[in-house]
Amino acid sequence: MMVDWLGYFAGSLVVLSLIPQIVKSWKTKSAGDLSLPRYVMYMIGVALWVTYGFLVDNGPIAYMNGVAFVLALCVVYLKIKYGLSASRSVPPNREERR
Amino acid sequence: MMVDWLGYFAGSLVVLSLIPQIVKSWKTKSAGDLSLPRYVMYMIGVALWVTYGFLVDNGPIAYMNGVAFVLALCVVYLKIKYGLSASRSVPPNREERR
Repeated sequence: MMVDWLGYFAGSLVVLSLIPQIVKSWKTKSAGDLSLPRYVMYMIGVALWVTYGFLVDNGPIAYMNGVAFVLALCVVYLKIKYGLSASRSVPPNREERR
Repeated sequence: MMVDWLGYFAGSLVVLSLIPQIVKSWKTKSAGDLSLPRYVMYMIGVALWVTYGFLVDNGPIAYMNGVAFVLALCVVYLKIKYGLSASRSVPPNREERR
């Protein structure tokens, strides 16, 4: 169906939108400003969307949220790797002493 | 329908997951690590999901993505307000000289 393609296109944009964040955090090795609870909630949410998509037999919802889940997992990994030890809210002098 | 509630619940988690990010950037007045292209792509994507939701007459998709659009707009506002001038990738001594 034509309308399915709109769903896949919308889903692709939402899903691909995670990639600049992954690239940015990976390049700068910095994720202090990212919110970990935000991405954990997001992962649970998209996992439920996948379930919902299969229950109502809606391909775009099920598959695009499945890809979103994998990419969100990458963001959580980068946050845990680079973001938990440092935060921009820490004053600069405290950061230098480390 | 029972399954509609699963959609609304999944959507709520995805949508509410934006709130910790808004609170974090608002409190720390810092959004240098956030990716602006990520949130602009995300906004276009959820706007298309809203269109798709109405076309296939799916309430959870249309309404939850509508709320996501408004919250993503808040993140973009905070990013533009706090995040464009400073980035953690800037060396500390350059940051101090400003």
